[in-house]
Amino acid sequence: MFIRFITTGGTIDKIYFDAISQFEVGDSPIDNILTEGLVSFDYDVVSMFQKDSLEITDDDRLVLKDFIENDDANAYVITHGTDTMADTARVLGSISGKTMVLTGSLSPARFKTTDAVFNIGLAIGAVQSLQSGVYIAMNGQVFAEGEVVKNRHENRFEKVADSTTEN
Amino acid sequence: MFIRFITTGGTIDKIYFDAISQFEVGDSPIDNILTEGLVSFDYDVVSMFQKDSLEITDDDRLVLKDFIENDDANAYVITHGTDTMADTARVLGSISGKTMVLTGSLSPARFKTTDAVFNIGLAIGAVQSLQSGVYIAMNGQVFAEGEVVKNRHENRFEKVADSTTEN
Amino acid sequence: MFIRFITTGGTIDKIYFDAISQFEVGDSPIDNILTEGLVSFDYDVVSMFQKDSLEITDDDRLVLKDFIENDDANAYVITHGTDTMADTARVLGSISGKTMVLTGSLSPARFKTTDAVFNIGLAIGAVQSLQSGVYIAMNGQVFAEGEVVKNRHENRFEKVADSTTEN
Amino acid sequence: MFIRFITTGGTIDKIYFDAISQFEVGDSPIDNILTEGLVSFDYDVVSMFQKDSLEITDDDRLVLKDFIENDDANAYVITHGTDTMADTARVLGSISGKTMVLTGSLSPARFKTTDAVFNIGLAIGAVQSLQSGVYIAMNGQVFAEGEVVKNRHENRFEKVADSTTEN
Repeated sequence: MFIRFITTGGTIDKIYFDAISQFEVGDSPIDNILTEGLVSFDYDVVSMFQKDSLEITDDDRLVLKDFIENDDANAYVITHGTDTMADTARVLGSISGKTMVLTGSLSPARFKTTDAVFNIGLAIGAVQSLQSGVYIAMNGQVFAEGEVVKNRHENRFEKVADSTTEN
Repeated sequence: MFIRFITTGGTIDKIYFDAISQFEVGDSPIDNILTEGLVSFDYDVVSMFQKDSLEITDDDRLVLKDFIENDDANAYVITHGTDTMADTARVLGSISGKTMVLTGSLSPARFKTTDAVFNIGLAIGAVQSLQSGVYIAMNGQVFAEGEVVKNRHENRFEKVADSTTEN
Repeated sequence: MFIRFITTGGTIDKIYFDAISQFEVGDSPIDNILTEGLVSFDYDVVSMFQKDSLEITDDDRLVLKDFIENDDANAYVITHGTDTMADTARVLGSISGKTMVLTGSLSPARFKTTDAVFNIGLAIGAVQSLQSGVYIAMNGQVFAEGEVVKNRHENRFEKVADSTTEN
Repeated sequence: MFIRFITTGGTIDKIYFDAISQFEVGDSPIDNILTEGLVSFDYDVVSMFQKDSLEITDDDRLVLKDFIENDDANAYVITHGTDTMADTARVLGSISGKTMVLTGSLSPARFKTTDAVFNIGLAIGAVQSLQSGVYIAMNGQVFAEGEVVKNRHENRFEKVADSTTEN
C-alpha cells in the first residue's frame, strides 16, 4: 500500500510566530502524526502550497489537479484549509481512476486539543477502503464530493441535504 | 450514520493506579477521543469487558458475537488488546451483514504520545467505507480478517504473507 | 499559604479563533494548569487585562499597581506578555512588603509543546520562597526586577550584564 | 546558575512496556521537560537509581548523601518516588551548605495529564530562591524537611500539623 500525502496549508498547518504575534501556515505536522500513528505502509509527503484556504485560487486548484493526473500513485490524502475544501474537491472530481480524500482540521495540529490527528487517521482509513473518487473526511464522517458543505455557523461539515434542511 | 463502539479492554484502556503501583485497565477513553475529533455522527459506547486481551476467553468471544448478532446496528468499532485481536476477529467472521472493525493501540490512550487517537480515526474511516465483514485497523492499515497477524517481535500488525516471508 | 494570580494577557493566554483566522488573547489557562499541578494551597485568579504586552499602557500598569497595593494578599503571580514584562516589573518595584513574581510564556499554553506549565510552576516555587520584592520567572530562572531584560533576538530573558556583554 | 539534577526513579520516571504488560521505571524525562521549559541555566542530570521509592533502601540513601556531600554543586533537584520521599529528605538533612529540593509526581511524566512538568518547574523555582537546606516541592507547595508527610489516603503532601489534625 502506498499513499501520497499532499499538503496545501490551512488551519491544520498553522504555526505561531512570537516575534510578530501572528499565526501563520508552517511546515506540515503530517510526518509527526504518521510517526505517532506507528504506520507501516509506504508514503511520501508533497508540500504543494502553504496557504489559508481562502487564498487558494482556481489556478492553484488546476496545478493540484494537473499534478495528480500526471502522478503515478492511486491513493491521495490531501490536507487543506476547511473554508474552500469543497471547492477544491469539486475541481478534482473530474480525475478518474484514483481515490482522493481531503481532510484538514478545525484547530491547529500543534494544539494540545486538536482534531488533526483523528482526521488524518480517518482519511487514511477511508482512502484505502473506498473506490476511486473524491471524498472529504471531517467530523468523523467521509462524504462524497458534491454532497458536502461546510456549515460555517456551526463550524462543521455536513451533507448538503442536512444543511439545506437545518439552516 | 450510526456507529456502535464496543470496548473490551487492552492497552488502549490502560490506566495507572498510583496506590498499588500497577497499570490496570480502566474506563475507556473513547468518548474523549470522539469529542476531540469533533465527530458529528450518532454513536454510543458499550463497555463489554475490561481485560487484557490475553485474558479474553473463547466464552467472552461468544458473548461478544452473540451481542452483535442480536443488536440492531450495522457498523461496529471494537477496541481490543492487540495480542489476541486476530483471534476475536476470527470468531466474529461468521456474522453476516454487518461491518465490524477492531482496533486498539500499542501505547495507552492516556499517554502523551500514543497511537490511540489515530487508530480510532482510522477505524471510523474504514467502518463507514467498507462492505460488511470483519477488519483490523492498526498501524495505518485496514486488514481483512484472516489476512493479518500481530508480529510480536516487531510489535506491529502485518499481512499473513508478509509475516510468513519476513519472519 | 495563599497566592493571588493576576492575568493580563500575553502569549500564555493566546487562543486561536478559526472564523477570522486570527490568534487572540482568550481566557487564561491558569486554572487548568493549577488543577493538573494538583496544587493544594489556597488561591484565586483575577483577570485584569487581556492584552498583548505591547498594548499594555502606563495607565494599565498604574491600575495594576494600585490594585495590589490596596489588596490584602502577600504573594502574587502575575502572568504577562513577555515583550514589556520588565517594564511592568519596574512599576511594581515601588510596592513594599509583598512578593510579586511575573511570568508568561514564549508559546501559548494551549500548544502541545509550551513553556507555560513549567513557568507557572517556576513562579509558584519562587513566590513562596523569596522575600518581598518583584521578580521575573522565565527560562527556568528567577530574576530580580531591574537585573533582567528580554533578549528579543534570542527570544529569552537574561541578566542585564549578560545581555550587555553578549549582544 | 548551575543545578545538578539527580534522578532516583519513582512514578515520574514510569514507562510502560507493552510486551510484558507492566509499568516499569525507565529513563528520566527530565531532559525533555527542561527543553520544553526553554531553560537557559547550566545543568546536568545524574541517573542514580531507577527504583520505586518503596524499594529505596537506607544504604541507597547513604549513597545519595555521600554523592552530594562530595560533589561540588550547591543546588540540587532530586526526583524521587513519593512514598518515601520524606524519608530520603530526612537523611539528606544533615548535609550543610547546599540547597536540595526533592520532587516527583503523582502520575507519570509520559502521561497526557501529569503533574510532572509543573513540579519540576516548582522545584527549580524553589532551589534557586531558598537558603541551604532540604525541601520537598509537591502539590504546588515547598515544604521544609521534617514538616511534611505524604497523606496516602488523599494522595498528597501536607504539613505534619495539618496531617495530624485532619486525619
